[in-house]
This record gives sequence, structure tokens and C-alpha cells, in this order.
Amino acid sequence: MGSAFDPFVMVTEEPAVVNSPPPLSNLTQEELKKIAAYKAVEFVESGMVIGLGTGSTAKHAVARISELLQEGKLKDIIGIPTSTTTHEQAVSLGIPLSDLDSHPVVDLSIDGADEVDPALNLVKGRGGSLLREKMIEGASKKFVVIVDESKLVKYIGGSGLAVPVEVVPFCCDFTRGKLEELFREAGCVAKLRMKIGSNGGDATPAVTDNGNYVVDLYLERDIGDLEAASEKILRFPGVVEHGMFLGMATTLIVAGKFGVTVKDRFG
Amino acid sequence: MGSAFDPFVMVTEEPAVVNSPPPLSNLTQEELKKIAAYKAVEFVESGMVIGLGTGSTAKHAVARISELLQEGKLKDIIGIPTSTTTHEQAVSLGIPLSDLDSHPVVDLSIDGADEVDPALNLVKGRGGSLLREKMIEGASKKFVVIVDESKLVKYIGGSGLAVPVEVVPFCCDFTRGKLEELFREAGCVAKLRMKIGSNGGDATPAVTDNGNYVVDLYLERDIGDLEAASEKILRFPGVVEHGMFLGMATTLIVAGKFGVTVKDRFG
Repeated sequence: MGSAFDPFVMVTEEPAVVNSPPPLSNLTQEELKKIAAYKAVEFVESGMVIGLGTGSTAKHAVARISELLQEGKLKDIIGIPTSTTTHEQAVSLGIPLSDLDSHPVVDLSIDGADEVDPALNLVKGRGGSLLREKMIEGASKKFVVIVDESKLVKYIGGSGLAVPVEVVPFCCDFTRGKLEELFREAGCVAKLRMKIGSNGGDATPAVTDNGNYVVDLYLERDIGDLEAASEKILRFPGVVEHGMFLGMATTLIVAGKFGVTVKDRFG
Repeated sequence: MGSAFDPFVMVTEEPAVVNSPPPLSNLTQEELKKIAAYKAVEFVESGMVIGLGTGSTAKHAVARISELLQEGKLKDIIGIPTSTTTHEQAVSLGIPLSDLDSHPVVDLSIDGADEVDPALNLVKGRGGSLLREKMIEGASKKFVVIVDESKLVKYIGGSGLAVPVEVVPFCCDFTRGKLEELFREAGCVAKLRMKIGSNGGDATPAVTDNGNYVVDLYLERDIGDLEAASEKILRFPGVVEHGMFLGMATTLIVAGKFGVTVKDRFG
């Protein structure tokens, strides 16, 4: 954390790491995600234990790893999936899988993010898999984050989208209220995440892979000291984990209209 | 926290708060628990929202509250049970119940503890209900802890029994290993809590009210700064909550062979 990195001018400030000119301005967001994912898979080496991320960007990385295995360009890879969804994708693509109990040290994880701030702090978990992602990516020697440029923010919560918090179902409205109160000065609105009922039924709380609920925090303003905010959130007994990934990403790969940028946190 | 209170000499040091001589040396541990519980219920007033604890000592308090309601000596009590077990007991005794979602502020909670240190820090949750207890007791204006004298320790973990940590089932052995490593210097052994299978079947992990598992930490030596230890434990993504209740108890009631002692944290 703490490097002076402004995502909004990074290409012009750091021309040395731009490695795919000319402009990619005709590409869709989906294509940009794929470009970032493929770039990340270049870090994968045979014999590695790889944390496999979850979401629309990470799925391209999982698919690419499978391709390279099939082509024989990679071998002896063990994947650690960060969600049941990724588990299913990886199984269908024939990637050998294991878990943290058997492989407590992960060589490299590759995953997307919902937001990335200038210090490479992340918001993750809008897709509902933040706890498993945080366990696996926290156990990784390297953690490569892959995003399209729309995910870069000036501060956590700055996209106007939510910072998710996984909570136990027991008295979740009490916990929701406590979280909203905690960030009142930042104009926080905390909402229990709901999912639409099937066949037009009533909406019910969205349930995580771990059987918990999610409270989404919408922030009007910067909450300031993220480490302090993290400690305060985790201190609520009803909170299981939150979606801020602080000081965890070691490398950021951003695909944008003007190319692909690779940024090392300690680089 | 922080008051100079030595539980091993408290009666002789603080004669003013000894209110039940003569010696109770002929009483069983069960009778001592009951004496402490009845003393705690003296703090209950009509109209209060009461957190109802869980365990072999707290159950006497729940029963006593019900008695006083039936005798008309208390009225308009709303109980907030800290476990499904206590919920069932309170329902069977006719105590009106609610929850934290409806009553986010609790006037008074009464509960037992597995250990109490000289600063009134507690270990709770050997019975498996630490998360709900911590939510409800943390929302309480007053929290009266009731124990027999066998629960007094010089330091947290000092009884040789476990400090429990509630963890998500996902990769719980990984989390267990991380916890053991964290307190290696205190000679920590961390074990996943198991329960014997019914009809002689294999043992399976014990499951909490929230569908989680419990890792029990056995400590050979004092772990020192408890607040720092708490933050470190909570920072593991797989941890939901731990059984150290720091700075939460406002009053301690101890029943021992030489009488009942009432100790206020700020008194």
C-alpha cells in the first residue's frame, strides 16, 4: 500500500509498463477483461498451486489456464477455486483441483475486483464470494488482480456501488443498523442484499456459499483510514468478513482503451 | 478493564461487598451457581429488556425470572435468548421473548462464563453459543456475569480449558492451523471441536447455532495483550468470532464457599 499511483493517468505516467499499444479503443468491455486475464496467466508456471478467482473477468483466466494445460504449455497445475461457481467451471474444463486444507500455501492467485484504489486496495464480493476469495488470496504468495479500467476509483466506495459485508443471518437487521451507524459520517446507507424470488415470488435475502447474508454499504464519501475501518467492522460479532482487500494485491493488470498496464505494488 | 482485582483474595480484600456470610462450605457447585444466579436477578426491574444467557449457571437465572413473573413481582419483561436452548427453556417457562432486530438496545444481560480474569475479561462459548451471546451482551447497557469461584483465573486460558473460536466450515483445518501458529509462543494447540456420533457412529464436527464449526485453543501460557490478540484472530477471513469477551462485563457475581461477592467493573 501507499505507493503514489494515480490510476487515471497511469499510462502517461508509466509508459515503460504499457506493453500493448496501439489503442484498443474499438474493443468491448468483455474483450478488455479477456486481455487482462490472458496477461495475468502469463505469470502462471508449471507446478504451481493457483487460486482461481470468481466473476466475469476471472472466468477468462480460468479458461485460459485450461487451454494452456490442454496444449501442453502448462503442466502439474493445481487449482484452488474461490467459489462453487468457479469450482464447477474448473471441473468442466478439466483443471485438477484441491483446497487450502491440503495446500495451505498458494503460489499465485488471479482474480477480478469491483474497485481498485490508487494504493491497490480492493473492493470485492459484489458477486457474493468474498470470504473464500479472501481466505485463498490471503494465503497466496502473489495475488494478481485483473480489471478493465472502469474499476479504478479514487477511494474505496468511490464508484457509488456497494462495499459488501458478509454477516450471519441471526439478527442481521441489527448488524445492518450497526454498520450504517459506523459510517454515518461518510453518508453510509446499508442494505441487506436481496434476490428476486423465482417465478415472481417474494424477494428473499441472498445467501453466500457459506450460508450467510450480505449487507451492502453504499458510501457517499471517502471513509478515510481503511485499516481502522476494517478493524471496526470485524469487531461486530454478527460480521463474518468484509469485501475490502487491504494490502493483499501484489500486482494489478488493467486493460483500457489505450493498452494493458501492469503495476506492481512494490515495484 | 484494568481494575486491580485479585479474584483469589477478593473476599478478604473487599469485605464491604460480601453480602452472604456465613460460610457456604457445605453447598454443591450447582447450589453455588444458583445462588449467584438469584443474586443477579435482583438487578432485574419490571419493564426491562433482558438478555437471557446460556449454560448451567444462566439457566437458574432464567428460571428465577420466570418465578418472579408468575408471582407478580416482575412484569413487562421481554427476554432476548442467546441460544436456541435458552429460547426453548424461556418459551417453556412462559417468558415473553423478542430479538435484537426488534430491540436493538438491551437493558441488562445475565450470563455465565467459562473463565473470568482479574480485569473481568471473560472466556465464553465452551457451550457453543458465543456469537449470539456476544451480539446480545454487546448490545446491553449492563452485563452481569454469574459464576461459581472455580471459574476465576489469573489469565485468559489459565484454567487449561479451551478458548473457543467460531469458524466457517470452509477449509476449517487451514484456519485451525493459522490460529495455532498465531499463538505458538503461548504453546497453543488448536483442535476442531468434534461431537460423538449417535449410535456409536463416527465423530463429526460440532455445529453452532449459526451452522459454523468451533476451533478450541488450548494455551499453555498467558497470551498477553488480549485486545491485540482479538484483532489478529478476527482478521483471519475464516474466523466468525472468538470467545474472549473483553471489556464487556459490567458486574461480576461470584458464589464461593465463603459467600457471594459482587464486583462492579467501574466500582
